[in-house]
Amino acid sequence: MGIISRPRREQVAAVVPKLLEWLAARKINALFDEETSVSLPDATRKRTRADLASQVNLLIVLGGDGTLLAAARVAAPCGVPILPVNLGGLGFLTSVTLEELYPALEHVLEGRHRISERVMLAVELLRGGQAVERQRALNDVVINKGALARMVDLDLHIDGAYVCKYRADGLIVSTPTGSTAYSLSAGGPIVYPAVDAFVITPICPHTLSDRPLVVPDSVTVEVDFEGSDEPVYLTVDGQIGIELRGGDRVRVTKAPEKLKLVRAPKKTYYELLRSKLKWGEH
Amino acid sequence: MGIISRPRREQVAAVVPKLLEWLAARKINALFDEETSVSLPDATRKRTRADLASQVNLLIVLGGDGTLLAAARVAAPCGVPILPVNLGGLGFLTSVTLEELYPALEHVLEGRHRISERVMLAVELLRGGQAVERQRALNDVVINKGALARMVDLDLHIDGAYVCKYRADGLIVSTPTGSTAYSLSAGGPIVYPAVDAFVITPICPHTLSDRPLVVPDSVTVEVDFEGSDEPVYLTVDGQIGIELRGGDRVRVTKAPEKLKLVRAPKKTYYELLRSKLKWGEH
Amino acid sequence: MGIISRPRREQVAAVVPKLLEWLAARKINALFDEETSVSLPDATRKRTRADLASQVNLLIVLGGDGTLLAAARVAAPCGVPILPVNLGGLGFLTSVTLEELYPALEHVLEGRHRISERVMLAVELLRGGQAVERQRALNDVVINKGALARMVDLDLHIDGAYVCKYRADGLIVSTPTGSTAYSLSAGGPIVYPAVDAFVITPICPHTLSDRPLVVPDSVTVEVDFEGSDEPVYLTVDGQIGIELRGGDRVRVTKAPEKLKLVRAPKKTYYELLRSKLKWGEH
Amino acid sequence: MGIISRPRREQVAAVVPKLLEWLAARKINALFDEETSVSLPDATRKRTRADLASQVNLLIVLGGDGTLLAAARVAAPCGVPILPVNLGGLGFLTSVTLEELYPALEHVLEGRHRISERVMLAVELLRGGQAVERQRALNDVVINKGALARMVDLDLHIDGAYVCKYRADGLIVSTPTGSTAYSLSAGGPIVYPAVDAFVITPICPHTLSDRPLVVPDSVTVEVDFEGSDEPVYLTVDGQIGIELRGGDRVRVTKAPEKLKLVRAPKKTYYELLRSKLKWGEH
Repeated sequence: MGIISRPRREQVAAVVPKLLEWLAARKINALFDEETSVSLPDATRKRTRADLASQVNLLIVLGGDGTLLAAARVAAPCGVPILPVNLGGLGFLTSVTLEELYPALEHVLEGRHRISERVMLAVELLRGGQAVERQRALNDVVINKGALARMVDLDLHIDGAYVCKYRADGLIVSTPTGSTAYSLSAGGPIVYPAVDAFVITPICPHTLSDRPLVVPDSVTVEVDFEGSDEPVYLTVDGQIGIELRGGDRVRVTKAPEKLKLVRAPKKTYYELLRSKLKWGEH
Repeated sequence: MGIISRPRREQVAAVVPKLLEWLAARKINALFDEETSVSLPDATRKRTRADLASQVNLLIVLGGDGTLLAAARVAAPCGVPILPVNLGGLGFLTSVTLEELYPALEHVLEGRHRISERVMLAVELLRGGQAVERQRALNDVVINKGALARMVDLDLHIDGAYVCKYRADGLIVSTPTGSTAYSLSAGGPIVYPAVDAFVITPICPHTLSDRPLVVPDSVTVEVDFEGSDEPVYLTVDGQIGIELRGGDRVRVTKAPEKLKLVRAPKKTYYELLRSKLKWGEH
Repeated sequence: MGIISRPRREQVAAVVPKLLEWLAARKINALFDEETSVSLPDATRKRTRADLASQVNLLIVLGGDGTLLAAARVAAPCGVPILPVNLGGLGFLTSVTLEELYPALEHVLEGRHRISERVMLAVELLRGGQAVERQRALNDVVINKGALARMVDLDLHIDGAYVCKYRADGLIVSTPTGSTAYSLSAGGPIVYPAVDAFVITPICPHTLSDRPLVVPDSVTVEVDFEGSDEPVYLTVDGQIGIELRGGDRVRVTKAPEKLKLVRAPKKTYYELLRSKLKWGEH
Repeated sequence: MGIISRPRREQVAAVVPKLLEWLAARKINALFDEETSVSLPDATRKRTRADLASQVNLLIVLGGDGTLLAAARVAAPCGVPILPVNLGGLGFLTSVTLEELYPALEHVLEGRHRISERVMLAVELLRGGQAVERQRALNDVVINKGALARMVDLDLHIDGAYVCKYRADGLIVSTPTGSTAYSLSAGGPIVYPAVDAFVITPICPHTLSDRPLVVPDSVTVEVDFEGSDEPVYLTVDGQIGIELRGGDRVRVTKAPEKLKLVRAPKKTYYELLRSKLKWGEH
């Protein structure tokens, strides 16, 4: 098993040594990423995240949604499942609480765990017809104006058919997983993870009749950026940012591989929604 | 071929005789429903809508979305496709204009027409555990308070799992087809017809964090009504209304049969969206 | 002092006798409305609500927002202030909790209490040019379709100038006080009580660019109803309902008298917002 | 009279010489700003915009809303009215069309013109308790995260009372004039210019119950920025941008002087709304 964490979080120092003991007691070999190794003595078990993902059967990710998004990009191509443990914060993705960590690990060891497969986005940045950047995203791909610009003009095509021109602060292409992240703040719907769809949500559109659009995840989404006086950016899962140039095309499709998330025992997606969105507290 | 129309629309009287001539010239036998027969002499070709649907290979529906919704409920169980012709009004469903009628018919005769298959809802009203009413809906199933009540409390379950309690004016369960109808007015997303999903949209929810929910169309949606002092109604496609009683459960699933809509030649769904929603007119 | 309550609430039976003792100990004469008298022996102090309002210097209203809305309609014309005490439920208007009742009464006796003056609506229903109904509203005047109709067409004029035609489920004309009630559920803004404005909020508008409109409270708002096949209603504070006829005009202006609400000691409007809307709980 | 224009717009070259002739024929002395002078021979009548505003009785502004926003900041302190002429584009502010220019000027010469007085914002940036920047805004003051950050935490105080913490893309403080600009795209209401209020609209708030807030324009609005890893900006009317530092406070009040806008003859504010927002086109 491998451990990925964000050691700046205070709780990691308390949790990781105990977790290593628990695994050792069960004769399970554990490796960890460079960030986690900061607080640990045994450097022989340190790996880069990419190596880690290719050498283990399960990745235990300790942290918030940000840590998980980064881990997902290395885990999904290797097909290795992630057990996402929430160390504070909101955490739609890191649905397993610290109290549920050991019960969840026991489920995994007994093969009784449930896996939630999540679609990921494959994004290409095309410049002069050439792909100059390729990334994976678990939540979303966002095209966003900088703070000093008032809007950006973006043309949307789906499977080659022209859909519309957005005059907006930006545009979000989201997976169902990402529908409860940025897209929700921008007015998008909540999409159950098993729906085979993307959500395309404009950010502060000037055309008041622009509404979030839900399209099959089998389509090719293309967004063309004409250019503007002020910088405009492509961001991937809110973590990787690239400045766009006039004439750039952002192409988004479903990635061939899915992310495997180990689910918390006994918890439904709707329970998660209720607690995160404070529903039903009349 | 069969013809269904709403003869109160002035244009019907002008269109139908010419259409019958056109069909007769091509030796196609035409039947029509009772409403259309009002303006026609030949009573031998008059049928009830249910009989009409079972005796023809194509139903030409002349009117607005309301006429089409009623026709869909008889056509879908028989598997007979509908050619929907818009006689004025907005018309998301009746996408074929009067100018496109004859080119579209020629496409049908030549077998070159394209069919858009649309999921329909099967709705059951359960009272004391018994189904007291069963209907089909192409657009939506709505539970709605009357004008004099301020809100209604509704409990939502999906596949038996509790989702949340809505305190709202009502709740809409919509197909992708219906996503551009009432659900859109209530703040729901636009869902491309090929997405295998339902949209569940609360109407004026008191809990401000309630948001439209997109779920796979393979689920069973159940809405429980506790009761209230003022009348609360179940409506099907905005056309069939039933007063609910306290303890009633409304169960919605995907109907086994789909509606077959003949598409207008050369027009994309996005063109329709742009013209109906006045998009892209900067 | 006068007491108005909704005796079906369990707490009233516990609270009122103790409150009467507290007032008697301070030699304050207390009267009460007919509903409150149900649980009390002394019928000589029973009054109709209208008489009560004209005979006292302060009305203590025990209940929820509904009880307060009804009390406001009798109190405002007499100029008598209301001390609104919340007996459970949400309660934007009944901002004084049961714990704060006696401290607030002491403030009143010492003349140290603060009054929040609230604008009320004067609504007239004009039929054939004649006013057939006149009412006051503290929260809102709503024109609403019944559950079985899909929409209603309403023409809005402000100070005689045509504004627009709404095709919607209905239309809300709200005071700042009412902005946190139905208008908020329909997408309206929160308006601080001291703003001299009305909010006009469409309910589920079909035209997606229709947005809530904030206008000076010095204007005359007129809404014309053309008529429809299904019943359409005018409701006042969600409590008085009148069926409209085609050709009816609903005229809304600021009422000449304001409601005087005794404020809870030390609490700001924003504290109330935060607790009611669950803000700031990150 | 003075002329301010944006000469890059093609129409300016065609309009200005004809306008100068028209004014000369009526013996009206005309000055113009440096940008307008680019396409004109007579350099003796060129002035800086600030000088222009202090030396004329009326400023004719030719261009779009951007040109007007810049002109408003120099005109309002001098009390000189603006005649805003729209040279293409949407233009909520530049309500006078080119066809209406000469009729409107005649109204001005005859003293029959109507003036719409518009509240402006006075914004101060406080750093370490000192005002390091002071500006005026006709539309809005915006605090906005850069494209690469996911959100910013902002604390709102009104008249010294804590309101709430926003976790959002940013926050807009808008005048009624600005309510149809950026605030509208972010979900704010339309506020009639005569309402004495500001609108505070969060941009993509993470707390789904955050709603636009309408407050009296007599208040002091203060927004505190704690700091963040990524740059965050204060922008004034979308034209002046200043990077914020952790601990900065942005203070917004009503400016002592108002902008005087000459209104187009015979046009109501609602006509403008209908044409800009494409209302009422059923």
